[in-house]
Amino acid sequence: MDIDLLKELVETKDFKTLRNELIKLDSVDLARLLDEADQDSGLMAFRLLPKDLAMQVFDLLDSYQQLHLLEAFTDSRAKFFFESMQPDDRAELLEEVPAKVARRLLKLLSTSERQATLTLLGYEDNTAGRVMTPDFIDLDYRMTVYQALERIRKLSVEKETVYVAYVMDNERKLLGTINLKDLVLADPDTKLSEIMTPSPRTVFTYTDQEEVARVLKDYQILAVPVVDTENRLVGIVTWDDVVDILEEEATEDIYRFGAVHGSERGYFASRIFSVVRRRVVWLFLLILVNTVTGSIIAGQEELLGEIVILAAFIPLLIGTGGNVGSQSATVVIRGLATGEITPRRAVSIITREGSIGFVLGLVLGVLVLGWAYLLGRSFDVAIVVSATLLGISTIATLTGGSLPFIFRLFKVDPALVSAPFITTVMDIFGVILYFFIANLLLIL
Amino acid sequence: MDIDLLKELVETKDFKTLRNELIKLDSVDLARLLDEADQDSGLMAFRLLPKDLAMQVFDLLDSYQQLHLLEAFTDSRAKFFFESMQPDDRAELLEEVPAKVARRLLKLLSTSERQATLTLLGYEDNTAGRVMTPDFIDLDYRMTVYQALERIRKLSVEKETVYVAYVMDNERKLLGTINLKDLVLADPDTKLSEIMTPSPRTVFTYTDQEEVARVLKDYQILAVPVVDTENRLVGIVTWDDVVDILEEEATEDIYRFGAVHGSERGYFASRIFSVVRRRVVWLFLLILVNTVTGSIIAGQEELLGEIVILAAFIPLLIGTGGNVGSQSATVVIRGLATGEITPRRAVSIITREGSIGFVLGLVLGVLVLGWAYLLGRSFDVAIVVSATLLGISTIATLTGGSLPFIFRLFKVDPALVSAPFITTVMDIFGVILYFFIANLLLIL
Repeated sequence: MDIDLLKELVETKDFKTLRNELIKLDSVDLARLLDEADQDSGLMAFRLLPKDLAMQVFDLLDSYQQLHLLEAFTDSRAKFFFESMQPDDRAELLEEVPAKVARRLLKLLSTSERQATLTLLGYEDNTAGRVMTPDFIDLDYRMTVYQALERIRKLSVEKETVYVAYVMDNERKLLGTINLKDLVLADPDTKLSEIMTPSPRTVFTYTDQEEVARVLKDYQILAVPVVDTENRLVGIVTWDDVVDILEEEATEDIYRFGAVHGSERGYFASRIFSVVRRRVVWLFLLILVNTVTGSIIAGQEELLGEIVILAAFIPLLIGTGGNVGSQSATVVIRGLATGEITPRRAVSIITREGSIGFVLGLVLGVLVLGWAYLLGRSFDVAIVVSATLLGISTIATLTGGSLPFIFRLFKVDPALVSAPFITTVMDIFGVILYFFIANLLLIL
Repeated sequence: MDIDLLKELVETKDFKTLRNELIKLDSVDLARLLDEADQDSGLMAFRLLPKDLAMQVFDLLDSYQQLHLLEAFTDSRAKFFFESMQPDDRAELLEEVPAKVARRLLKLLSTSERQATLTLLGYEDNTAGRVMTPDFIDLDYRMTVYQALERIRKLSVEKETVYVAYVMDNERKLLGTINLKDLVLADPDTKLSEIMTPSPRTVFTYTDQEEVARVLKDYQILAVPVVDTENRLVGIVTWDDVVDILEEEATEDIYRFGAVHGSERGYFASRIFSVVRRRVVWLFLLILVNTVTGSIIAGQEELLGEIVILAAFIPLLIGTGGNVGSQSATVVIRGLATGEITPRRAVSIITREGSIGFVLGLVLGVLVLGWAYLLGRSFDVAIVVSATLLGISTIATLTGGSLPFIFRLFKVDPALVSAPFITTVMDIFGVILYFFIANLLLIL
């Protein structure tokens, strides 16, 4: 069953065959198929699914496909699927839809579900509060293992994760955590306070989601407990959310490094003009900076008029500067993002990058010199080019290595040091150095 | 307690204070501290830790720090910590050490542990076989829930994950999975075959680790079962390994996009010359390509000698071409990596990117034209520049958008379409188009 067959069966209205083909697939493959389908065939195929399977598939769909379906459904059907979503997924979906649609959807919910969703929406984007689920297993510290297991049996069907339970005191402050495994292994009469892991690592509702992911990863726990400012447990962020967060944050970093502005979600679903708007700002800024490079070259009209061949090496030199600088920026930006390097090591890393740039410049300079010699090109121009390569490589690694630290220092995301940004900055340094050396060696 | 205090206390040999300070930290913070410390202070601090804590910390250390410690330890101490590692972590560590050290470490293991480790090492790097753990809970399909729980109680202490158990037939073929939760909730006399989830999604030992991560993420399961070619269950890849894999793969993609070659692990621990070697290949290749750009410019010596100001716009034009191309390549590469876009959508995505490039070129062209007018620059050169911007933007989005698909078609990782690569290719297109338009409008 692929997308073409789906289309064909919808067009020929052969719903019986379609249904038989659909139920051969598992929920993940179905979700993938529906995500690729156009709105009408998607809706048609979804309607043919048995209710249980439909619910599983709905959960796995892209948010814009979920929204299409909810909009096309009758109220009662929309209510059924919208209520079946986890509160955190629901909040995420609502955030992306027009206000009018959001109001219709919110009205479908029961008062308590609506309240839970609105609470999550009240937290800032990309914080623990926004991605946490308020559904978790809370146990009282005076319970025994037997009582705890009884409570879990009663609650578990509706809880997103039952692998970890949270032990709280009378004021709902978190005292410790217990893995389901340990509960199963323990003597039923043991007090929870005896077997729990006390004082677990928590995050606040306003903690950045990237930090939450790091805690889960470092402590190798299945869920990170989220507390409010008075230290009361209000939710947990589970491992599957963290997998999504890590992927989202990596995408964000990659986009920034490629100078693509803004969130990427639904990038391929958005209109061309909105994409243009997101990209054009950076491009025009870079063009403005590039005119500086242009003016510097224009200022050397006399020299260039005399030795026109000098112009031919400009792209090679500024290109290499940009490339070397991008390499340094890449390793530093990624190191800062994964925590492999910390700002306190800035000086040693920048010095190191500078030495790397010097050695790179030497190697490239000698290669270019030898190559120019073989081609029998003008040797004095080749020396100017080689000397510039040496200088530009060193400056490029120093610039590319230090800019992410400088951005971090001013609380700007280091990932905004994009490859185009480095390239453009290196253009300026490149032509200044080139003409300085050329004037020095060729004119004097 | 920070790294400076640690150093100071080691130097002044104030071990009592050091120990007191150390045990105030939790295992994650201790591991972070030791990872930052030099080899001697790290070893000293580690020796002061109580055995239980030391074992937890050892597990969390970077692999090169683990290796330092193992090399410094006596055989019996090295044996203790090396045996405490998970087989998959052990295989990973062994892969990075010199053969001599690996032999010494392997000798420390019991025969069965050594066998398990060597088996894992036999699988290709970056496959499911390499990252899986052979420790999992296997249940017989004829067992009842009660018998299963008994077996889990007996086994669990040494199993990496006990949240999912695997139900097998006589030939160790996987029949289904059962969550610990479902075992706890079920009637003790139920047969496992009645409550298991049948025919779970599996991967082969040779499946790429990126694909394994995608299965775990798509199916939202805590561990992916790994089978051999005869469908016998041989191991599982757990969620915490997948979190590492996702981070590693994102780093690899980001490095490639920045034209940094090779694996990044321990990048900041490797020698300057090995870093230079990894970077210089790409750079020199790009310089070779760039000489094409140079020759094209050199071929226009006559035109440039006449209208020298044309040279001043070269960086702006080729820079913008590179930037626009990088943006398109960024979204397509990332889309392919996360599975948001598939090769079958290639044509529609490339067309889309082309339209975006055309609109971007129009906007940028008009802006530059207006700006040149305001500055009172030579108007006919401004028209040449604007027209080139329009053309180069369109070509750049088409190139940046299609190259990743072309690479994928030839089974090359699309992430190798790096920003420097795109930039360099666009340099060539840029100057060709520029001089073509200039000759057309200014000379004829």
